Amino acid sequence: MLQSQLFTKTKRQAPTDEISKNARLLIQAGFINKEMAGVYDLLPLGLRVVNRIRKIVSEEMEKLGSEEISMSSLQNKEIWKKTGRWEDKAVDVWFKSKFKNDTEVGFGWSHEEPIIEMIKSYAESYKDFPRYVHQFQNKMRNEVRAKSGIIRCREFLMKDMYAFCASEEDNLAFYKKSTDAYLKIFEHIGLGDITYVTSASGGVFTDKFSHEFQALCDSGEDIIYVNKNKKIAVNEEIYNEENIKKMGMEMKDFEKRKAAEVGNIFNFGTGKCEQMGFYFIDKDGTKKPAHLSSYGIGITRLMGVLTEVFADDKGIIWPKEVAPFQIHLLCLQQDNQEVSSKAKELYIDLQEAGYEVLYDDRSESAGFKLRDADLLGVPLRIVISGKTLEKESYEIKVRCLKDQKIMPLPKKDSIDFKATIQSYLNQSI
Amino acid sequence: MLQSQLFTKTKRQAPTDEISKNARLLIQAGFINKEMAGVYDLLPLGLRVVNRIRKIVSEEMEKLGSEEISMSSLQNKEIWKKTGRWEDKAVDVWFKSKFKNDTEVGFGWSHEEPIIEMIKSYAESYKDFPRYVHQFQNKMRNEVRAKSGIIRCREFLMKDMYAFCASEEDNLAFYKKSTDAYLKIFEHIGLGDITYVTSASGGVFTDKFSHEFQALCDSGEDIIYVNKNKKIAVNEEIYNEENIKKMGMEMKDFEKRKAAEVGNIFNFGTGKCEQMGFYFIDKDGTKKPAHLSSYGIGITRLMGVLTEVFADDKGIIWPKEVAPFQIHLLCLQQDNQEVSSKAKELYIDLQEAGYEVLYDDRSESAGFKLRDADLLGVPLRIVISGKTLEKESYEIKVRCLKDQKIMPLPKKDSIDFKATIQSYLNQSI
Repeated sequence: MLQSQLFTKTKRQAPTDEISKNARLLIQAGFINKEMAGVYDLLPLGLRVVNRIRKIVSEEMEKLGSEEISMSSLQNKEIWKKTGRWEDKAVDVWFKSKFKNDTEVGFGWSHEEPIIEMIKSYAESYKDFPRYVHQFQNKMRNEVRAKSGIIRCREFLMKDMYAFCASEEDNLAFYKKSTDAYLKIFEHIGLGDITYVTSASGGVFTDKFSHEFQALCDSGEDIIYVNKNKKIAVNEEIYNEENIKKMGMEMKDFEKRKAAEVGNIFNFGTGKCEQMGFYFIDKDGTKKPAHLSSYGIGITRLMGVLTEVFADDKGIIWPKEVAPFQIHLLCLQQDNQEVSSKAKELYIDLQEAGYEVLYDDRSESAGFKLRDADLLGVPLRIVISGKTLEKESYEIKVRCLKDQKIMPLPKKDSIDFKATIQSYLNQSI
Repeated sequence: MLQSQLFTKTKRQAPTDEISKNARLLIQAGFINKEMAGVYDLLPLGLRVVNRIRKIVSEEMEKLGSEEISMSSLQNKEIWKKTGRWEDKAVDVWFKSKFKNDTEVGFGWSHEEPIIEMIKSYAESYKDFPRYVHQFQNKMRNEVRAKSGIIRCREFLMKDMYAFCASEEDNLAFYKKSTDAYLKIFEHIGLGDITYVTSASGGVFTDKFSHEFQALCDSGEDIIYVNKNKKIAVNEEIYNEENIKKMGMEMKDFEKRKAAEVGNIFNFGTGKCEQMGFYFIDKDGTKKPAHLSSYGIGITRLMGVLTEVFADDKGIIWPKEVAPFQIHLLCLQQDNQEVSSKAKELYIDLQEAGYEVLYDDRSESAGFKLRDADLLGVPLRIVISGKTLEKESYEIKVRCLKDQKIMPLPKKDSIDFKATIQSYLNQSI
């Protein structure tokens, strides 16, 4: 893409009304736009990152055999009353409004209740199980405070999956399988090394329990206790002498760390389906309640966590698998026709080699362009200027590494060229 | 896809609480689920249709040079106050709620105001124009009545594009170009023959005007006057002696027809940008207001209109370009292993030939499966049974045509096979 055609521009300074690093950088670089506290728009670059994260998550959901759906945001009060979760006393993040006939209506902050209501009309026999469904849907949550940028929003894109099983055994097996799929996702987007599965409440031996996926992050809202060698972590709420002993470890084996929740999974057992009257006829002819587990990942939140975790003092650093572009090509003398025509050739070559390239073809100073590139955080930077052309070369630099290197310009149909680019890209996170 | 793995099932009867043909059929066939009046979920089959429509629209937006973004649903009251459109007296479809600190917040029913507010922070000079942005976003509208199924919803997926130009000339040129792109979209999804551009208000010689794209549809909510030979139509509001005379025609040249609006485009001139304080510095150094035009297509509404227009008394008929699958393969004796293994072979062959196939592998009766196939409306139906296998053949039928035909089963690597399938598919809408 030609950078001159991108409507967003980087801002000279980070916004003064934001505290969090992610919002400051993402707004300054033009990935998101602030509507109100905790409410952001996705601009072209931000939407590209979100779509890449979404694709990675989507692929894992498909492998699990889940079917994609899209539930309404508008929520029927009667359905939520069945589980007592309509009342503000039970759930304090509801946005509510009214239809013209004065009927109250809510805006979905989660979707267990309507999903159960919908699936139960299609699953009456044990033959209809298991059923897995997921969606990418904008949740609305009326948060009291919203100071963590896109890590805690009043409106955010979430992937939520719901699994309905006929037996506890099937439910637990899928819970395990999904945990592995989640770990694969975090690995894929670059958070593998620092993401821990933590038991959030209950224990594996009770009917209802849940786990969180926590990424180590100095600006995270949560505290976890970590043993890096064993890759084990424990949530603050259950970190005590007794529980640690049960794990065959000691409290001194753990280090206190701040972390950001990047995913959570719940096993509701049969409780929620019983409340909602979701029963099926089992093999033996008896009526049984369905088992439900649910699986959430905040897609836009992940963009925020990635920013927090990897950014340096010059700007954002995107892992290559989620970056808006893989290569940022900078032409430092756009108004010199010899230089700009060489840059354009390279732009075409790189795209033909299969890369997504942002080409800075603007008439701006070298310093401006270099600062912009650091701020935007594209994994690989390639620079062409009068100086590099004197040596028939270009300059290549991995955003997250210090050194840059001069490489010869590619000859026609050069095989080495793609190998060189790829070897540099591989050095990125 | 294996039909046994689809969690939805067709219902024996259409829902009794729906009047509109589209909601009755789409619910009965399992494309959508009703949450409340005017509020529907997209189930796997429905989401597939919507995604295909979305892709067609998306391609045309890209060709126009528009950049994709995603604005929040939550709306800042202060921004809408600038144009007077926050008040319920001015806009009667707002859903509104409150933050915890009692500040009022709205839910987006359209996005001109926040888009102007956002773009103006990036466009200060004539060099920053033109800018085109679009999004696929769920709009919320507090409609008094919702009786037309997914044609008039309280929440629906819309593609809205906004064009900002530095001059009237550029704005009008883009308006014309977008009109052509819209006509291409309706042609592509199968509505080309019956879709008319109608002048909705104003005229081409005033600053502000708008046009609608109206598809002839007996259950449509609008009335238009049509001259089929000249492919001209006029909206009811401006259909009078004087206007018709201006067109060099007579009132007897027009036929009164019902129609459904499938798209609309507005030219706001500079009015809205002036209200919002969006000025730029032009070439001559003077400050000028930007020109705005906006372009809407209701994506989920289109699914409803397609259902209304093409369905017959047996069920839905999808045009091939938007169908959830291109081929519906029915195995009529699933429990006969010889038959089902031949069906599975054909299922693989068809997929290898590049088609998306729904394979009915369920243990249901022939009559049940055939009725289901008619209801679901996949363009091409292929049947395998003991009877067809006796003749080493399969039966092929185009959903919108009457006759079915017996064809020989494909030999390994048969070129004729793909040609046959394609020639039948081409006969579909």
